[in-house]
Amino acid sequence: MSDQPVQPPEQGAEGEQKSKKQLQREKKEAEKAQKKQEHQQGQKQQQQQQQQQVVQEEDNCVGRYGDLSLIQSQERTQRKWIKVGDIDQTLVNQVILVRARIHNSRVKGKLAFLVLRENYNTIQVVAEKGEFASAQMLKYMSGIPLESVVDIEALVKQPNKEILSCTQKVELEVRSIKVVTRSLPMLPFQIEDASRRITDFEDGVQEQKQEEPQQKQEEVQQKQEKQDKTEKQQIQVMLKTRLDNRVIDLRTPAKQAIFRVQSGIGLLFREFLVENGFIEIHTPKLIGGTSEGGTNVFKLKYFNQDACLAQSPQLYKQMCLMADYDRVFEVAPVFRAENSNTHRHQCEFISMDIEMVIKEHFTELLDLMGDLCIYMFKGIEKRYQKEIEIISQQFPFEPFKIPEPVLKLTFEEGVKMLHEAGVNQDPHDDLDTVNEKTLGKLVREKYGTDFYILHRYPKKARPFYTMPCHDDPNYTLSYDFFMRGEEIVSGAQRVHDPELLIKQIKEKGIAVEPLKDYIDSFRYGAYPHGGCAFGLERVAFLYFNLKNIRNACMFPRDPVRLFP
Amino acid sequence: MSDQPVQPPEQGAEGEQKSKKQLQREKKEAEKAQKKQEHQQGQKQQQQQQQQQVVQEEDNCVGRYGDLSLIQSQERTQRKWIKVGDIDQTLVNQVILVRARIHNSRVKGKLAFLVLRENYNTIQVVAEKGEFASAQMLKYMSGIPLESVVDIEALVKQPNKEILSCTQKVELEVRSIKVVTRSLPMLPFQIEDASRRITDFEDGVQEQKQEEPQQKQEEVQQKQEKQDKTEKQQIQVMLKTRLDNRVIDLRTPAKQAIFRVQSGIGLLFREFLVENGFIEIHTPKLIGGTSEGGTNVFKLKYFNQDACLAQSPQLYKQMCLMADYDRVFEVAPVFRAENSNTHRHQCEFISMDIEMVIKEHFTELLDLMGDLCIYMFKGIEKRYQKEIEIISQQFPFEPFKIPEPVLKLTFEEGVKMLHEAGVNQDPHDDLDTVNEKTLGKLVREKYGTDFYILHRYPKKARPFYTMPCHDDPNYTLSYDFFMRGEEIVSGAQRVHDPELLIKQIKEKGIAVEPLKDYIDSFRYGAYPHGGCAFGLERVAFLYFNLKNIRNACMFPRDPVRLFP
Repeated sequence: MSDQPVQPPEQGAEGEQKSKKQLQREKKEAEKAQKKQEHQQGQKQQQQQQQQQVVQEEDNCVGRYGDLSLIQSQERTQRKWIKVGDIDQTLVNQVILVRARIHNSRVKGKLAFLVLRENYNTIQVVAEKGEFASAQMLKYMSGIPLESVVDIEALVKQPNKEILSCTQKVELEVRSIKVVTRSLPMLPFQIEDASRRITDFEDGVQEQKQEEPQQKQEEVQQKQEKQDKTEKQQIQVMLKTRLDNRVIDLRTPAKQAIFRVQSGIGLLFREFLVENGFIEIHTPKLIGGTSEGGTNVFKLKYFNQDACLAQSPQLYKQMCLMADYDRVFEVAPVFRAENSNTHRHQCEFISMDIEMVIKEHFTELLDLMGDLCIYMFKGIEKRYQKEIEIISQQFPFEPFKIPEPVLKLTFEEGVKMLHEAGVNQDPHDDLDTVNEKTLGKLVREKYGTDFYILHRYPKKARPFYTMPCHDDPNYTLSYDFFMRGEEIVSGAQRVHDPELLIKQIKEKGIAVEPLKDYIDSFRYGAYPHGGCAFGLERVAFLYFNLKNIRNACMFPRDPVRLFP
Repeated sequence: MSDQPVQPPEQGAEGEQKSKKQLQREKKEAEKAQKKQEHQQGQKQQQQQQQQQVVQEEDNCVGRYGDLSLIQSQERTQRKWIKVGDIDQTLVNQVILVRARIHNSRVKGKLAFLVLRENYNTIQVVAEKGEFASAQMLKYMSGIPLESVVDIEALVKQPNKEILSCTQKVELEVRSIKVVTRSLPMLPFQIEDASRRITDFEDGVQEQKQEEPQQKQEEVQQKQEKQDKTEKQQIQVMLKTRLDNRVIDLRTPAKQAIFRVQSGIGLLFREFLVENGFIEIHTPKLIGGTSEGGTNVFKLKYFNQDACLAQSPQLYKQMCLMADYDRVFEVAPVFRAENSNTHRHQCEFISMDIEMVIKEHFTELLDLMGDLCIYMFKGIEKRYQKEIEIISQQFPFEPFKIPEPVLKLTFEEGVKMLHEAGVNQDPHDDLDTVNEKTLGKLVREKYGTDFYILHRYPKKARPFYTMPCHDDPNYTLSYDFFMRGEEIVSGAQRVHDPELLIKQIKEKGIAVEPLKDYIDSFRYGAYPHGGCAFGLERVAFLYFNLKNIRNACMFPRDPVRLFP
């Protein structure tokens, strides 16, 4: 196992152009981290010097500490490893075995304290010079770099005074400690620093909209730096640094909790749908012609043919319905070549798509989707109390208000509320992000809800496959769901008549020919139907108010980020 | 609703070059279908002539039949539609409402018989001239094209004699019939023809391996044509025709059942893993550099950067483990630019990936994965009896034999069995498809199982991230799972030591630099781990012995197919 010094994170690997200000800020950040680590190392050296006096003593703990050789399936013992999160009062006075990371360590004279971390759980470990810990063993312990993985055998003890800094309220008295794998001594940043309560500082960094003039960007940066300094000189790990070293950042407690909840959101989504007679489908992401005739697609060569990546499973999920799978869903990545550098756009994200036949009215769909949302939100609250608590320590958020029945407003009612508040809004055009947020605030004030449905969008704002309203051709049988003023779901009744479909495709100026297979699927008996799509990351991002969607995606993709 | 004649399926849209033989065969097929439809239409005309005598009679059923206007959310009544599959003895003497397709229709004098189909369920409908059916109404009914979607109100009746041709054993006496949407009168092929018991004929068509010389391909085709003629002149719908008109083909009962079971396989997979502490992750499909340093990747431009599509989530799922998510799974598409035109390769398929930490030995993983397979196979059998029955009508298969405990053989033991059977096999090289199948047969004969695990593959046969055996560097801690002699799962313990990893990357002649983020993820304390990947389509394809993997994928992608 080599202990070579850490490589500085490679710069420019992602083709990002850094501004001078950015470089300066990063340099400062690096210097701070360096100083901190030097300080820590200084302490360590001091400790080591103290201990050098004792290395000559006889070692009564030979075999109780040391580095394990590479684990390569040499043997399978019947030993049981206990998870950190499962070590509690019920195990007091038992000797247990645990494998975890060293989250923190300090040696005070004849005492060594470690904190072990597994997922988001932590436990305190003590070793006191004596029968179970020789001077040599204490020295060895103090030399293990943070984040290394260790196997520790220890006695579970009730501590003399309550442990506030760990999740587990019992402590471990070491019997043996073996290093499974060592970490490099210097990390790209400290887990502790990356776990601090988030400030607006971090949120703003990535939000450099292309529309914004350079001058304004620099103003924002200056403001950020000022804010940085007032944060009691605490190190702030910038979003870019986190994302460049994502594996380390994902180890922070809030991230550990976020992605556990996110897995649960997918489960809740499926549970509800399967219970309601839906089946899961898988449709191709490699598409011939042009996906939905739209722009913003990633293009590629498929052997000798021209192909693109699916912007959504829209056309395919509708074709599945025409193939008699009457209620379907799909959870899969979708791809958008939009050059949008905002806090809520991604070039690849997980779309949770739904499509179902309806008998008469698109409210059949709308009601079911409302129930699905309630099921998911209540499920998160019920199943993930611990995770919610952990996330809120880093990303404080107001509880999500969702009175029942779910509030439904028409687009025209929404426009009226905006007009009454003195906001300009064309009743026949889409809402922009600012007006969406404003309307969200107005709705919260008036109706006390963080979640509502806006329906009957203007025709101009919706894609060609949207069914127009029978009573007003300027509006459509479509809807969006909003959480905290931002869209998480978009849906509609679809056109199931091939001639009307062709008419609408032409009206949008899209070529009909590449859509032939899709259009033809409605020619052999078509079921009236509708559907919608949830953005998985958006649900988590807005439920927990994570400020930036990148906090809800393990390895995000935006116009400048393709690594790691 | 236009009733324009059906467009002939567009030729060459997929850039496929058709051989003369192929064109001839397709022409014959089309002629047969044409004749059949003409025959049917002839019958219809005769019926209509008979009925013309009566059109002048008074119509006592006005308002009980006709085409509905476009369903556009005009109103929402409180009517309940019953699913065809739910209409049984318990509803006898009740008037119910059903929406379904017309699967079949015939008029005999004053009697009209329809068969309605919804998903894979069918029910007989009768109308007799009298109080509930006028001559005009019978005429209207006889003119509705097959596959049209209708709303029928009807009295549920116990039939005089058992109905053998439908899934539902009661019949419906019409009260009203409304066409929701009409099908074009001529279909690309008949559902009935596409539902016939599969013969080797169909299987062979797509299997035109590039390696095979043109002459051999033509021999195969001649054999197929001969076979075709001997099949009592029944129309065989070729795989290509099915795939070109996939929405129609997916309506056949076996396909309806296959994709319902496939959705269930995904559920069973998740259930087991969630129960065992795994979380679901989502990793990017757009990858910077080269995915796993391998060949056979689809390349594309990502804004100004070079990118490719993920061949697998391998590197990312391992990085998730290094980020302390200790048990993860992902169900997502993967992309392989392999020019393989075989019965079991696809260029895009659903990979069900698993990765987990292990404490000591890769059998921890292997045992759990064996249990997972048992859980899935038993779950299919238990939950999908009806679907299994339906699938076996078109794709007859021998029940899947899987004695417990799961049979585990080492690669060396497998090689020995092959050698004893007189088959050549290099003990240090991978099995090819033929030897895999042969070994499958030998194993079935000797151990009576359709499912077994082969482990300790030679180093040459496995990727760079595979952990070598500690006792023999020529072999690895890897394994494949086989169903009916074909691979469904591939997995291994992985290398978690960065220096060993770099050594193995170099040995395979792969560039180290693009893998930097991945390699670095093992530098900050690494957990020993392993994992595997299931091909979702392969599980369904081999469980049901569907002959061709395209029968287990809704919209398959192979080197020549990118549409629909």
